[in-house]
Amino acid sequence: MADSHTLSVSEAAEQIRQGQLSPSAYAEALLERIDTYEPALQAWVTIDREEVLDTARQRELQLESGETPGWLHGVPVGLKDIFYTAGMKTTACSRIYADFVPDYDATCVARLKEAGAVILGKAVTTEFATSDPSPTRNPWNREHTPGGSSSGSSVAVASGMCPAALGSQTGGSTCRPAAYNGIVGLKPTYGRISRYGVIPVSWSLDTVGILVRRVTDAALLLQAMAGYDANDPGSANRPVPDYRREMDSNAGPPRLGLLNKGYFFDRATPEVRQHTEAVAGQLAQAGAVIEELELPESFATAPDCQRIIMNVECAAFHEEFFRHRADEYGPRLRANIEMGLLIPSVTYLQAQRLRRQFRQDLTGLAQRVDALLTPATPAPAPRDLNTTGDAAFQAPWTSAGLPTVVIPSGLSEDGLPLGVQFAAPPFEEGKLLGVARWCEGALGVDLRPADYI
Amino acid sequence: MADSHTLSVSEAAEQIRQGQLSPSAYAEALLERIDTYEPALQAWVTIDREEVLDTARQRELQLESGETPGWLHGVPVGLKDIFYTAGMKTTACSRIYADFVPDYDATCVARLKEAGAVILGKAVTTEFATSDPSPTRNPWNREHTPGGSSSGSSVAVASGMCPAALGSQTGGSTCRPAAYNGIVGLKPTYGRISRYGVIPVSWSLDTVGILVRRVTDAALLLQAMAGYDANDPGSANRPVPDYRREMDSNAGPPRLGLLNKGYFFDRATPEVRQHTEAVAGQLAQAGAVIEELELPESFATAPDCQRIIMNVECAAFHEEFFRHRADEYGPRLRANIEMGLLIPSVTYLQAQRLRRQFRQDLTGLAQRVDALLTPATPAPAPRDLNTTGDAAFQAPWTSAGLPTVVIPSGLSEDGLPLGVQFAAPPFEEGKLLGVARWCEGALGVDLRPADYI
Repeated sequence: MADSHTLSVSEAAEQIRQGQLSPSAYAEALLERIDTYEPALQAWVTIDREEVLDTARQRELQLESGETPGWLHGVPVGLKDIFYTAGMKTTACSRIYADFVPDYDATCVARLKEAGAVILGKAVTTEFATSDPSPTRNPWNREHTPGGSSSGSSVAVASGMCPAALGSQTGGSTCRPAAYNGIVGLKPTYGRISRYGVIPVSWSLDTVGILVRRVTDAALLLQAMAGYDANDPGSANRPVPDYRREMDSNAGPPRLGLLNKGYFFDRATPEVRQHTEAVAGQLAQAGAVIEELELPESFATAPDCQRIIMNVECAAFHEEFFRHRADEYGPRLRANIEMGLLIPSVTYLQAQRLRRQFRQDLTGLAQRVDALLTPATPAPAPRDLNTTGDAAFQAPWTSAGLPTVVIPSGLSEDGLPLGVQFAAPPFEEGKLLGVARWCEGALGVDLRPADYI
Repeated sequence: MADSHTLSVSEAAEQIRQGQLSPSAYAEALLERIDTYEPALQAWVTIDREEVLDTARQRELQLESGETPGWLHGVPVGLKDIFYTAGMKTTACSRIYADFVPDYDATCVARLKEAGAVILGKAVTTEFATSDPSPTRNPWNREHTPGGSSSGSSVAVASGMCPAALGSQTGGSTCRPAAYNGIVGLKPTYGRISRYGVIPVSWSLDTVGILVRRVTDAALLLQAMAGYDANDPGSANRPVPDYRREMDSNAGPPRLGLLNKGYFFDRATPEVRQHTEAVAGQLAQAGAVIEELELPESFATAPDCQRIIMNVECAAFHEEFFRHRADEYGPRLRANIEMGLLIPSVTYLQAQRLRRQFRQDLTGLAQRVDALLTPATPAPAPRDLNTTGDAAFQAPWTSAGLPTVVIPSGLSEDGLPLGVQFAAPPFEEGKLLGVARWCEGALGVDLRPADYI
């Protein structure tokens, strides 16, 4: 059990089921690892060690008493500090929510618990999950941003403090830090996972995200959390498939639509462009069919629409606090709220209308192949602690509501993680994860920061 | 057949099915009646006599050939001139749409045709179904407004030009003119009838309305048109009950919640207040249980929320035309659009939020009884052709999305129609119509303007 921190979710769950790994020992090993690396990385806000060990012990007793283990039985999971946890502070790393203790669990947290997960603690987020940087550092190089807003969740997974964590994505807050830290990020379809009990940024965009080290783990967590919730007005009322079965029926070499013209390649550095072409070449070698596709015209409006909708809804949520406590907000969030307060309704409604259009157009494009393929970010994590990096490669997909996965695909010249991103039509997570898993296998890349693992 | 214009929809449909009334003779009788009264009342924009008579003749041939007649087989129905009719002008009585000829029928129009209806023509609406008065006159007294925005549809039914017509309601555009003209108006639940192919005022509020002379007729038209339509983003994806069966299972004396305090009685004239109390007394005499109820606090915000949402969405729809052709709009609509263009997004979103609250609160109130009871309008139709009257008694229900019915309940001292309004929880149209039909019977009021019928 000396290296239990290197286990993936599925490996750990399997070893626990087989009695080869004890939930208590596993939790203890991860808490020790947190003790070692937390001072340098600052990934956590709140960890209640006693509660963690109590829960782990309970999971052990459940197994001993012959209870059927859930898919995540005994697996420690970190939560971005915007997910309500009954009886435990949920601060959004803000001064406004500094002392807020919810009296119920977010729906997705409750579902993780039902699947047997052990909540390890609350991970650092940028303030209110927006763009003022958090103190968290990138484990690959502490002078580089870990990205945001799910900074703590991503770094915790990347540095082996936990095998999985929840993030969220309104612009690029799950898949971007996943790429910057060399791990796997899944942003499911809008409406697939309930946001009830999640502090919002923007209800038309907010999506619960999953951060893990292997593609197959994303399917496990998605399976545990997906499904309708009447308490979330954006929740999709449609059946949840068996994602592992869907992955398995998409286990062959995929047909990929490479978006190497226009928006993505215009914004990517030469290194990222070359890397993405090389990845596509490697996947083609392994049997994938690569088709070069062009983006629909409506795509040009996507980033502005995303920003308008985000700022307006963010302002609507904060308006009441902001009237009295504007000086307690970080400068970037303050500017976003102020901008949101100025935008006329008609602009907001036109943005929503354009967005429905490019959702339709992007869905049509994605339906032509098994998945679309883009670089994960314009560049690796910037050497700048005053930014959380560039969400440009995530925001259009978030706005359109399509599911995306980022997987690590190599290292930059500077030794920083590079990734590629896949997108699929709404509610096609099973196929998307099947494609990403095949590519993960074909690339054979499993990144671990030298200092930490 | 000399008095076929006095038939209700159900009587006419029954006589047609029995071979006692020929669709052609019926259509001809109504066209003649239109010739007689249209110059004084100005209820119609477009009538294609040949097409009407051709369709009526077709309906006859269908019967002769033994085809199973639809519920509305051979029954002429008028359409407010905002409903798309393939190949026939749809002007919204505006200069902007003056020459617009749609190439498809609105979903609800197509469904009426499937049920066997004969489209009689396009009825006058106020410009773009808002509040600049139309030239239409009230058949009870031509110096009084017929109300709006469904002015032509209401007057056509009230004056015996057709047994049924479609209107729409965004504020009070179906139930108010129904009351002013002494007929029955049904505004169904938001989302129950598709608005695909209906020129919008405000998509969060717009509801297709039904204007008829007997409550039971409203059920027939609703049955023909209700149901999900993927082309209307606001369409409710839920099953359509058998409304006549639901009416029949609510055929006994109802339990009514009389709203005779606060909002409604504060705004009603003494005559209307006394009349409403007298109606309640008469219903109690006949066996109804009358319970006096109070409105929820959130109701106070309803009228402002309705106005904000309407003006903003109306401005969003017209923005493009308005930029170049503002001088072609009537003064009231122009002011609404200008107001809408000024409203910040956050105000709009807060209005939508408050609205969800009072929808919930009003639904709770309505669930305590079989139906809520209010006066239909603050006063009978004003003696003023420069207004369409006061929508205050309709707008809160439209905003909340609850179904309402207005029935005629007597005459004012000045000889103008008075009405009462019933409201029920969302999607309880069957029960609502059952209650209204029982009350219609208990009151025994069937108003017909002396000069016209």
